[in-house]
Amino acid sequence: MSELSRTTSTPVATIKYYQREGLLPPGLRTSPNQAQYSDEHVRRIHLIRALLGPGRLDVATARAVIGAIDSDAPLPRVFATAQRAASVRIDDHDVDAGALDRVDDLLADFAITAENPGRAAAAAVIRAFEAVGQRDADDWYRRYAEAALLVAEADLDMLEQRPSRDEKAETVVVGSVLGDALFAALRRAAQEHVSTIRYEPGRADAIRRTRSSR
Amino acid sequence: MSELSRTTSTPVATIKYYQREGLLPPGLRTSPNQAQYSDEHVRRIHLIRALLGPGRLDVATARAVIGAIDSDAPLPRVFATAQRAASVRIDDHDVDAGALDRVDDLLADFAITAENPGRAAAAAVIRAFEAVGQRDADDWYRRYAEAALLVAEADLDMLEQRPSRDEKAETVVVGSVLGDALFAALRRAAQEHVSTIRYEPGRADAIRRTRSSR
Repeated sequence: MSELSRTTSTPVATIKYYQREGLLPPGLRTSPNQAQYSDEHVRRIHLIRALLGPGRLDVATARAVIGAIDSDAPLPRVFATAQRAASVRIDDHDVDAGALDRVDDLLADFAITAENPGRAAAAAVIRAFEAVGQRDADDWYRRYAEAALLVAEADLDMLEQRPSRDEKAETVVVGSVLGDALFAALRRAAQEHVSTIRYEPGRADAIRRTRSSR
Repeated sequence: MSELSRTTSTPVATIKYYQREGLLPPGLRTSPNQAQYSDEHVRRIHLIRALLGPGRLDVATARAVIGAIDSDAPLPRVFATAQRAASVRIDDHDVDAGALDRVDDLLADFAITAENPGRAAAAAVIRAFEAVGQRDADDWYRRYAEAALLVAEADLDMLEQRPSRDEKAETVVVGSVLGDALFAALRRAAQEHVSTIRYEPGRADAIRRTRSSR
């Protein structure tokens, strides 16, 4: 275990915690004080850290998505589990029929079922957005939906590259969970970029000159 | 207060909690048992619920962004506070120089400073993504960055519609925090759409026919 700890830069206490929580399978015991760990254990530790760290999942949710990878569930089921796991928990009283109708209008061209977790989540966000007095945002919603379509196409294209069922399953989980975090991060960067270009064009040129000369 | 509770569909105990936590200012006391609340209080309660609910902020972070709205800080400062508040907390040891270089290459055309919170957050995500063995994802990153640019332009366009500094400040905060949740929700919907179109085209047609005939 101390070798596993070194290889993954993860403290032994953390590895034991992952095992206690059922996130990491035990090693193959070779003596009372020794167990053998495989490359699978190394990969799994990185996966757990990605889900609990940048992915911001809690332990129970991480356990559910890892369980979906390890099961022989068909890929659409793994996808659904990862989607639900990585979705904002929606409190039913944050959704109302009016907001659901707005989302259905917005996504009228999408072939989705009423149970899609994104549908209720989008309705909850739109309801909250309008409850705080934000208005005239239809164009904003529409442009978000268009960008989401581009991102979903990129998600599915990446998935198609993966050769085996197991690799697809892992990409589905990691891509669902980390994709949100990646997009949010890139949105922060893009906001500064667009804002600097629009309001401080001279500074934008200077920043880009400095960066390209590094 | 019971009227405020009715108007906002928020329990009195919750309103008292918001006041204790410094999220909601006290009403104007008119007698020992009575206080007067204004429309500002109603709007503020909706804002707090949006930040703590779909926005998933904790109380301390919500207090910081509300403080930024209430301050007379210049708009770029409010923007920076909202961005940091709504960003994934990055553990320094989740970022390495290699991943930062990757992000700088990816965003080479962006006029952003090294301090942009999205830069380190994107590096942490890319590092986690590759640590779990995901590879050949450069095209995926690039398409995410392109979509993020479209979303950031929509964000800034919405901001320009808002007439006053105070409305802009509130839109910055709400849009930063809820925008991530909205995009994540729409991405879930778009994934089901693209996946159904690609792998079950007959079912996609049937779903869309049913929806359009409602």
